[in-house]
Amino acid sequence: MPDFAIEIDPARLMADLRELARFGKQGTGVTRLAFSKPDIEARHWLRRRMAEAGLAAAIDDVGNVIGKAPADGPAILIGSHSDSVPGGGWLDGAMGVVYGIEIARAVVESGLVQRCPVDAVAFQDEESTYLPTLGSRTLFGAVSEDEMEVARSIDGHRLTDAIAASGFANNPPRRLDGGRYRAFLEAHIEQGPRLEAMQTRIGIVTAIVGIRRFRLHVQGQAGHAGTVPMAMRKDAGALAIALSHALLEAFPTLAGADTVWNIGSLALSPGAANVIPAGAEITVEIRDTDLAKIDALEERLRDLAAAHAETSGQDIVAIRTLDIPPAAMDPALGERIEAAAAALGASWMRMPSGAGHDAMVLCRHMPAAMLFVPSIGGHSHTVIEDTAEDDIVLGCRVLANAVARIAGG
Amino acid sequence: MPDFAIEIDPARLMADLRELARFGKQGTGVTRLAFSKPDIEARHWLRRRMAEAGLAAAIDDVGNVIGKAPADGPAILIGSHSDSVPGGGWLDGAMGVVYGIEIARAVVESGLVQRCPVDAVAFQDEESTYLPTLGSRTLFGAVSEDEMEVARSIDGHRLTDAIAASGFANNPPRRLDGGRYRAFLEAHIEQGPRLEAMQTRIGIVTAIVGIRRFRLHVQGQAGHAGTVPMAMRKDAGALAIALSHALLEAFPTLAGADTVWNIGSLALSPGAANVIPAGAEITVEIRDTDLAKIDALEERLRDLAAAHAETSGQDIVAIRTLDIPPAAMDPALGERIEAAAAALGASWMRMPSGAGHDAMVLCRHMPAAMLFVPSIGGHSHTVIEDTAEDDIVLGCRVLANAVARIAGG
Repeated sequence: MPDFAIEIDPARLMADLRELARFGKQGTGVTRLAFSKPDIEARHWLRRRMAEAGLAAAIDDVGNVIGKAPADGPAILIGSHSDSVPGGGWLDGAMGVVYGIEIARAVVESGLVQRCPVDAVAFQDEESTYLPTLGSRTLFGAVSEDEMEVARSIDGHRLTDAIAASGFANNPPRRLDGGRYRAFLEAHIEQGPRLEAMQTRIGIVTAIVGIRRFRLHVQGQAGHAGTVPMAMRKDAGALAIALSHALLEAFPTLAGADTVWNIGSLALSPGAANVIPAGAEITVEIRDTDLAKIDALEERLRDLAAAHAETSGQDIVAIRTLDIPPAAMDPALGERIEAAAAALGASWMRMPSGAGHDAMVLCRHMPAAMLFVPSIGGHSHTVIEDTAEDDIVLGCRVLANAVARIAGG
Repeated sequence: MPDFAIEIDPARLMADLRELARFGKQGTGVTRLAFSKPDIEARHWLRRRMAEAGLAAAIDDVGNVIGKAPADGPAILIGSHSDSVPGGGWLDGAMGVVYGIEIARAVVESGLVQRCPVDAVAFQDEESTYLPTLGSRTLFGAVSEDEMEVARSIDGHRLTDAIAASGFANNPPRRLDGGRYRAFLEAHIEQGPRLEAMQTRIGIVTAIVGIRRFRLHVQGQAGHAGTVPMAMRKDAGALAIALSHALLEAFPTLAGADTVWNIGSLALSPGAANVIPAGAEITVEIRDTDLAKIDALEERLRDLAAAHAETSGQDIVAIRTLDIPPAAMDPALGERIEAAAAALGASWMRMPSGAGHDAMVLCRHMPAAMLFVPSIGGHSHTVIEDTAEDDIVLGCRVLANAVARIAGG
């Protein structure tokens, strides 16, 4: 138990969140793509807010905003990303950024900064407008020049041009010193329906799921759908449907409680009503915190693809297009957040994060933990994303309480 | 048995076919879209060839080319369409048009025209660049002004503009006098692999299949494919795959020997790897010469859609988007073609036509029959479509022999 408390200011927290939501405002949400005008303006505003909070604040050469507490480590780093997807929610990463500023500010105001230095951070381009988790990876030198050179937005703009145009390019580059930090804490909206469904107010993330993605190509032979008898067809569509069905039947028998999978796209070509499909492309994604489960589903996927190819005499190629390993959060930090939630009378549960976050990068360099607050209706990456104000405030109080426990307990 | 024979000239037949293939030549095939420059030029050339054959030849106000034998009826009308799909085969409808010209010419040359008048025809836009079977339907007043007004090509050009620009608009309109004709005969490449697979040189069409087409819309709810637990999903893709699989399992149990079906397109939206599909669209096509079979498959399709909607609690809507009834060919004419094939020692088989043809329109107004020749590899509607020269010549000989039997037997 710490012998001090960090008292956050709910009104100030909400005011900062609402002001940040004005940058790139789109209805009830925001479009604040990395390196867009609203994103750049938001980052300058965040730097000023950090400086006003008593932090040594600067924007680095890719746009990360870091506010350093006026004290030597060991410090706690708190933050998330301030960029959004197109038509995204107003909270998403922004809430975690403002939690960081509010807690760092409360620490400075309370005269606790020597005992409990808190640095705040707003990472750049977590959402992959150009490069996924560009900002957090850059802070550890984990983005190669090659990767920077070839990175393009979906509409073809180069990352290097975006950086040059942003005005950030001439800022000093920044690397985070793992030695300064005892913890990284990232708060985020859940982006799913579990907390709401369980009527639970705080999620404590055990691990960020690993993601493995496959593109399956099924080969067939085009033909006139009226004139080629059924027995003479090499129908890529029928085979793709049979294989997809087999995957969806098999996966539940191998899955753990938290395993998820998705056939997000299935396309037949040429795609005409009267043409036997010559080809089919299926996208399959598997996520779990447990690598063995992901491996088991992949193995079955490959077995089923081979069996369907064998039976039909048609080629099926399975290509792994993405492979992100699971990232474990630090159990000791998780226990501190649990204790904080319990102390504040907040219901909590442990859960995996089904989505990726900057904490995935940070946890390789320092102990890291994540706290989730409920998303109303489970909505995320849409302008209708929202969280009850009480839950936003409670999440920040629990995180502040946990910070005191980590620094002082 | 007729007491006269119609001797066609194989060299002249092949020369005409090759010359016609120069209009819109694309590699080994043609692109001769209805009302395009090559189509218009081909029609003028066809009119001249018909006139040179001794027919009273004219192009009507939509581009049909008709060559009338210099004799009163009852006559036999022979032909097909001279327009093509984009990147189509050199034979397709063109072969049936040139058969008509060659047989009509042979009749005139042999001095048989009073006993056996043969009219030749090249229909306009069978391939539906603007309107399917536009030409043949126009000849029976079966295209309404409304239909003409709204018809557009796939790239948005108006049929009425195309007709005006073609120079055909001021030609006298034409209606076919059912009273003049005792038969319509259409020769065509098979457009499928059956004759080749059976090593049979002549197909005698029993009926042109009916076509019924459905668009199935499956409703789901989008969600993050990482954060929404499997049990909480309304996955339109998974349901569409299950329904499609059920259809493909059920149809063979209900099908007749010649029933064919096709799931030509299946699209998930939004179609991203990490988004649970919010919607799915499936296109299902069923063809048979037997309406009862088509009805049985439709009934099962509707039952399965309803059952899958019920079980999942998700909406599934099935819309019939096309319904063309089967069209029976005249059995007595078919017997004449069989007798002709047998007399010439050509192997033959009865078969349905899985594709639509102008004969579908003609058979409502006069006895009609179709003769197929083998397509190498079953290819059709592609520039690699081809038929062995021997088969082209044999097909025309069989048809000429059948004409003599119909007129004189």
